[in-house]
Amino acid sequence: MTAKQGGPIRRRLSTEERRDQLLTVGARLFSDSPYDDVWIEQVAEIAGVSRGLLYHYFPTKRDFFAAVVERESERMLRMTAAVPGVPVREQLAASLDTYLEYVQAHAHGFRAFHRADAAGDQAVRRIYQRALGAHELQILAVLAEDPEFGPVARARPDTQLAVRGWLAFTTSVCLEWLRGSDLSREQVRDLCARALLGVLTP
Amino acid sequence: MTAKQGGPIRRRLSTEERRDQLLTVGARLFSDSPYDDVWIEQVAEIAGVSRGLLYHYFPTKRDFFAAVVERESERMLRMTAAVPGVPVREQLAASLDTYLEYVQAHAHGFRAFHRADAAGDQAVRRIYQRALGAHELQILAVLAEDPEFGPVARARPDTQLAVRGWLAFTTSVCLEWLRGSDLSREQVRDLCARALLGVLTP
Repeated sequence: MTAKQGGPIRRRLSTEERRDQLLTVGARLFSDSPYDDVWIEQVAEIAGVSRGLLYHYFPTKRDFFAAVVERESERMLRMTAAVPGVPVREQLAASLDTYLEYVQAHAHGFRAFHRADAAGDQAVRRIYQRALGAHELQILAVLAEDPEFGPVARARPDTQLAVRGWLAFTTSVCLEWLRGSDLSREQVRDLCARALLGVLTP
Repeated sequence: MTAKQGGPIRRRLSTEERRDQLLTVGARLFSDSPYDDVWIEQVAEIAGVSRGLLYHYFPTKRDFFAAVVERESERMLRMTAAVPGVPVREQLAASLDTYLEYVQAHAHGFRAFHRADAAGDQAVRRIYQRALGAHELQILAVLAEDPEFGPVARARPDTQLAVRGWLAFTTSVCLEWLRGSDLSREQVRDLCARALLGVLTP
């Protein structure tokens, strides 16, 4: 490949890389502004692609936002997947560390994800709710298998609500932490761990 | 006062009663639909008043919504005010009972209040954030004075974040409970109490 005269050396992005680039730009825009204020034409401009190409990947703003939210959701699910056979109490700190590292490194994506709940578009809110439901199920499955928490989690009628509430706790704490808090990652981790153990312990 | 022929017996509402009636209608509409989908003309229609009168009380939709949110917020603050001199651990259950009774009795207002965070209008979100901040301060003040939790609450750097997170926990649990959960009020109360004591206890 040769560079255009005076221009930078460029190579074509693969379909996967291009999609990823567009979603990263999208995460930033959606994290800075409410859904209704984002124009997907801005995305094309920032990414330096034609609108046509953008529409080729994502026909509508809703599709685009759904893809941003889904990418973040999948990332979080992958990262916070439990190590099979290791008790919750032992892996909770490490799992929260990974999660909080993600929150810091992908602050835009994290904020964009949680902005989805505030979208005027009902379909967008449903995408968010579905993603949240998947997190809830992942946590519930891990708890149910745990030697310490399993029996209580399965017996208690409020386990699902407790996990739902804890996700809201953690989200709210992380959003506030990103807004600028003096707390270290370890302090936030310990706070979130304490909250989960607090609702689970009989 | 005499009834119109065949019509119901009517009396004029006082300014205060009228304002209250309009806000109650508003709470229902805002609880059922996103902010952007509510037309304040509907409010006039449902309340059986002219648009002119409605605009007299609330010049814009934003003013109207702000008044709905503020009324709910004040109610909650009043109801959950702590009894001076009584330890947190002793009055927590009673305070949560009052709060959950309110949530059930004013489900519309409660939902409308928390919808404010999802409003496209930034000024509306600020009103919500301010109201939430007032709740947070009220709880922090009670904790700081408490013989059991005061020393820890004052010493810990994460107390404010813990209370913020707990409010999100409680809100999320209540909204899900209203959506239709089999849990009794006592079960929801115990879950919320456990969550607070869990994050506060060293």
